[in-house]
Amino acid sequence: MRYQKDMKMATRHEKLLAAMHAAGLDSLAIVPGPNLQYLLGLTIHSSERLAIAFFGQNGSVRIVLPALERPRAEGETRVPARFYPWSDAEGYGGVLKQCLSEGGLGEHLGVEYTNMRVLELRAIEAAAQVEVVDATPLLGDLRMVKDDDELRAMRAAVDVVEAALGKAIATIRPGVTEREVAAVLDHAMQAAGSEPSFTTIVASGPNSANPHHTASDRRIEHGDLVIIDAGARCDGYCSDITRTVAVGELGEKGRAIYDLVLQANRAGAAAVRPGCSGAQIDAAARQVIEAGGYGPQFLHRTGHGLGIEIHEPPYLHSGEPAPLRQGTTFTVEPGIYVSGVGGVRIEDNVVVMAHGGECLTTFPRELRVLPG
Amino acid sequence: MRYQKDMKMATRHEKLLAAMHAAGLDSLAIVPGPNLQYLLGLTIHSSERLAIAFFGQNGSVRIVLPALERPRAEGETRVPARFYPWSDAEGYGGVLKQCLSEGGLGEHLGVEYTNMRVLELRAIEAAAQVEVVDATPLLGDLRMVKDDDELRAMRAAVDVVEAALGKAIATIRPGVTEREVAAVLDHAMQAAGSEPSFTTIVASGPNSANPHHTASDRRIEHGDLVIIDAGARCDGYCSDITRTVAVGELGEKGRAIYDLVLQANRAGAAAVRPGCSGAQIDAAARQVIEAGGYGPQFLHRTGHGLGIEIHEPPYLHSGEPAPLRQGTTFTVEPGIYVSGVGGVRIEDNVVVMAHGGECLTTFPRELRVLPG
Repeated sequence: MRYQKDMKMATRHEKLLAAMHAAGLDSLAIVPGPNLQYLLGLTIHSSERLAIAFFGQNGSVRIVLPALERPRAEGETRVPARFYPWSDAEGYGGVLKQCLSEGGLGEHLGVEYTNMRVLELRAIEAAAQVEVVDATPLLGDLRMVKDDDELRAMRAAVDVVEAALGKAIATIRPGVTEREVAAVLDHAMQAAGSEPSFTTIVASGPNSANPHHTASDRRIEHGDLVIIDAGARCDGYCSDITRTVAVGELGEKGRAIYDLVLQANRAGAAAVRPGCSGAQIDAAARQVIEAGGYGPQFLHRTGHGLGIEIHEPPYLHSGEPAPLRQGTTFTVEPGIYVSGVGGVRIEDNVVVMAHGGECLTTFPRELRVLPG
Repeated sequence: MRYQKDMKMATRHEKLLAAMHAAGLDSLAIVPGPNLQYLLGLTIHSSERLAIAFFGQNGSVRIVLPALERPRAEGETRVPARFYPWSDAEGYGGVLKQCLSEGGLGEHLGVEYTNMRVLELRAIEAAAQVEVVDATPLLGDLRMVKDDDELRAMRAAVDVVEAALGKAIATIRPGVTEREVAAVLDHAMQAAGSEPSFTTIVASGPNSANPHHTASDRRIEHGDLVIIDAGARCDGYCSDITRTVAVGELGEKGRAIYDLVLQANRAGAAAVRPGCSGAQIDAAARQVIEAGGYGPQFLHRTGHGLGIEIHEPPYLHSGEPAPLRQGTTFTVEPGIYVSGVGGVRIEDNVVVMAHGGECLTTFPRELRVLPG
């Protein structure tokens, strides 16, 4: 297993070098986070302490990191690498300079614009003369298509969150708080050996009309719509599902909104095939809701890529014309949010297969009216 | 309450303007995270979507943010501000340019080197000509001294984690996994209406010798040392406590290490008084462990500041000579880590008071040998 995993990391490293070559990058600087996990198997966290891994076009890997992290990093790193630890008392300046003098950066250094902080950028600029360019698209592209092991981890994460979602929905009744429902969900994921991939959302009644509500001490009431949005993480990969239930009864308007969102969810998933774009999937879902007269209340994009990160490329909105390849994974999550009525969102995780889109999430989507 | 809170935010804003003036800053750019929470009450999360709040020396506040975040941001922001929302389809470029043309940045713009990403930096550089300087120390200094409301929140977070810690320790016995103990702790914090302020650490047996272990499926065994390190968050403020217990029995070496760490913890807390430095507190704790012959096995600094963030200024190590003011809060957490024996860490949360250091954490520190 160890050998197999290292072979996989070696393959990723080869693909990375080819992509760097094609992009004209002499070197690449990666900070703690999803790309470091993907490229090295290294899970050290971003903190106030500087840590950077430098990848050379010649295949070298040099890692500047807090001395404290060295044992764990040496244990985790799955490609040959040289470590440059620094201590709190000394600071990182000298060690970074030594690292960059031993392995030059060349003329063009790629960095992650959406992960690297000004702290690391300025430290590199102070230690070396190099032109810094954005490697975010290159790295997003590498990670977008998932291999079988990655899909296996995502399916496991779907299984965990769907089981937990069932338990959480079973506790929903008037008088229970949003936070209590969220705690049941989180606890079930933890008991299954997993963990939440993001802060669990339970949005009831008026809160359901706000797509960015998380979970409050509000007590669920008869007549509420309740949106539950949660995900698990297994072997470093995320799931992300949303279902909406009604408590006691659902008025005519609420039912109309639910039906429309469900149709839009199905239309979005049905539009998926190799070569289709994020914009096309977005349009397929959006036109259902626009035709139903709720276009302005569909407040967000139709979905986002999913994998090591809970939000990663591709994004599903009108500005994304690039064709999607087989193995690409993302959410399809149309929603309608109406002040005074409430909100509905139905979210699935979809992978592009040769024949079309396969939903990894299979939790029932039909309207469920709980006793209330 | 609303009025009182807004008064507090107005006071912070005045202090910020005075600090900007003293530092020669014409403007300040703050991204989602702890400083935005502190200065505006705004809790939007950092994501792949750009969001920046610009503070002018004239008191203006301008916020560029994803359109989706606008309703929540308008509801939360507790000082007068102007909002510049952008949609996924349009992108942020035009809106950012409009914002910066309406409210100029002047010559010197402060940014948070440890929070702002290259993404935001490059976007600002593309939209305006300005010299960018590091405002991290200025902001750290503003937040370091806590007021009564902040201390109240931290005391509440201590109460929550200490109650949860008691429940978790009660479940420790041979055969239970580290992850199960962590889940009990996390669940207890959630049931109390709080949440973990960081990933709970349960490190048993050989894992206790690694200060950066989190929690695994390892089953606790007779003879183990078990380090439990956890924190809660209440009203946006963190606690962070560590205790170490033994299971079944503790050998002579383990007991010697425990006694040394406990003495070092007490010596560190006893060194606290207004005007003392992080370096002095570190030295007080460290010399106890060095005198006992375990200096090289005390692998980390003695502590870190605590508040909105789980790690924030001040830091307690030899490179920190600045005097600490009354109301400053931080951890005191000496530890010894010996391969083949295990590790011990004892961590308290301390606030600088007029008479010396007050421990917010009061959970018993004496060695506890659980049945095993």
